[in-house]
Amino acid sequence: MNGLPLKDAPQAASDPVTRLMALAGRDMAEVEALLTARMASPVALIPELAAWLVNAGGKRIRPLITIASARMLGYRGTGHLALAGAVELIHTATLLHDDVVDESELRRGKASANHIWGNPQSVLVGDFLFAQAFMLMVDSGSLDALHVLSRAAAIIAEGEVRQLAMVGDVATTRESYMDVIDAKTAALFAAAAQVSPILAGRPDKESAALYTYGRELGLAFQLVDDALDYGGLAAMLGKNTGDDFREGKITLPVALALEAASEDERAFWYRTLRDKSQTDADLATAIAILKRHGTLDETLAQARGHAARAQSALEIFPANDWTAALSALAEFVVDRAY
Amino acid sequence: MNGLPLKDAPQAASDPVTRLMALAGRDMAEVEALLTARMASPVALIPELAAWLVNAGGKRIRPLITIASARMLGYRGTGHLALAGAVELIHTATLLHDDVVDESELRRGKASANHIWGNPQSVLVGDFLFAQAFMLMVDSGSLDALHVLSRAAAIIAEGEVRQLAMVGDVATTRESYMDVIDAKTAALFAAAAQVSPILAGRPDKESAALYTYGRELGLAFQLVDDALDYGGLAAMLGKNTGDDFREGKITLPVALALEAASEDERAFWYRTLRDKSQTDADLATAIAILKRHGTLDETLAQARGHAARAQSALEIFPANDWTAALSALAEFVVDRAY
Repeated sequence: MNGLPLKDAPQAASDPVTRLMALAGRDMAEVEALLTARMASPVALIPELAAWLVNAGGKRIRPLITIASARMLGYRGTGHLALAGAVELIHTATLLHDDVVDESELRRGKASANHIWGNPQSVLVGDFLFAQAFMLMVDSGSLDALHVLSRAAAIIAEGEVRQLAMVGDVATTRESYMDVIDAKTAALFAAAAQVSPILAGRPDKESAALYTYGRELGLAFQLVDDALDYGGLAAMLGKNTGDDFREGKITLPVALALEAASEDERAFWYRTLRDKSQTDADLATAIAILKRHGTLDETLAQARGHAARAQSALEIFPANDWTAALSALAEFVVDRAY
Repeated sequence: MNGLPLKDAPQAASDPVTRLMALAGRDMAEVEALLTARMASPVALIPELAAWLVNAGGKRIRPLITIASARMLGYRGTGHLALAGAVELIHTATLLHDDVVDESELRRGKASANHIWGNPQSVLVGDFLFAQAFMLMVDSGSLDALHVLSRAAAIIAEGEVRQLAMVGDVATTRESYMDVIDAKTAALFAAAAQVSPILAGRPDKESAALYTYGRELGLAFQLVDDALDYGGLAAMLGKNTGDDFREGKITLPVALALEAASEDERAFWYRTLRDKSQTDADLATAIAILKRHGTLDETLAQARGHAARAQSALEIFPANDWTAALSALAEFVVDRAY
């Protein structure tokens, strides 16, 4: 199960997530089966909405981190499968509730679940998935892992409340922004990585190292996401751009641009974000201002720094295919912005 | 800690919940302290909204059941405090999300949290409290209790989704109504009672008996609530009446009245509940129809039957103050309708 060396893997030419998926394929297939089983219910809406979510699905980066961390440590049990499933269910439940909170109509350019099924349904199915996540954690048999993941779930909710209070707040500093993404994004990445050494009964030093790996990777991931919301380094408009701008979220590229703003630019940000008075042309103007001040570059530079720290955290572990894959994942998270 | 005999308790003349509260006073004070500690957060909205919820608070019936069940069994540890707190947090989180789902503006005649703070805030603080509930469960150290409570949380969400699909559905039968309340209400009462024998390592027979006690009590409780929403046996309008009617929820009094409806009455229910076309006078008309068919009486008779079954389930346990208090609680749950 320690897999093929990366260079021989069939998808060797593809991105690290695809390669990691191939390496972790057998485990991930079992995680998918657990997810499907957990979404079963005689109440038709639940499997229907859940199946839609799975198919709309992202890259399963969080459960991959749990699986790869466990395998890197030579863990031989099955508890990591349940924990990986729990991590993905917490993430999915959070997405469902986020879309209700943000009143989103789109996610990744597709209609969001709350837009199709309604807010009440999204709230309740989110609660159902959250409860199923905890049932999976119980299956892992590790109270310590349960503690880590339930704590992460509380921190995520705290971060989301904090973010909500900061919508349209043009006084948002880079520090308060970093606090928010540390909670709303990095906490779950950190927990996803940390539960594996805990489950495998590894020393605190390894648990701390994987916590750092996950946290730094999560910070890098969110910074890149926030840059991509303005088109990334190319700063090109696409169907997935502009959500944060339209919702009045002050992310790092904007917080940095606000610090350096001219009087006219400040008036622009106040009108569009604080007062939420926007026209169709404003997003292009916003991107032009971010380019002028180089804040998308700066945001991505920060992301590269966090990704590098994630990689450094892996140095205490013996090199194997899994260590290499986790390290490559940190690079990939940043590279997708280019 | 086995307490005073009921007759010597200071509030002996008052209702069973108050007497049980006195008997369980020391434990309940510790549960309150746990709840307060769990609601702490540097994010101001969380303790603010949570404190408001605690003060708006109900009678803490669910955690009382956990405490009394543990004490009845002679449990001497402290895990029951954490589990009782977890039960109340799950209940509170559920109430917050329910009010969002129902678009409620009032709860118990007071403005609801979502009406004061907003739906997004209620969704997120509910998630936070839910996560804190699981952290408390972890503190209890019992994976089996965690399984029972996380399963209950999933069943509650399932029941709520089912209820949502049944809003305005005039074809709702008494069976489908009972399925809904079994899930949305009785599951948590059952879990609240069952976690104590599990924690105390008691035989399956006692765990099953307390499950039955909690479930039957929960069914009685919800049936009485649904009758009270139309004014109870007196069928009097009050500030807390009419929520279900306005929301188009088909509860047992209405489901029974629909079975026996004349053509005119059927047209009335179709207009007011299915089509949600209501005038101010309609609630009084609805109550008059329910009285005509005696369906509030019938609903309360059903509640009495469930309360009696709850009491019977206690018969396998040796009589002590706690057994007596739990039995009295079952009577009280029904008596409040009169």
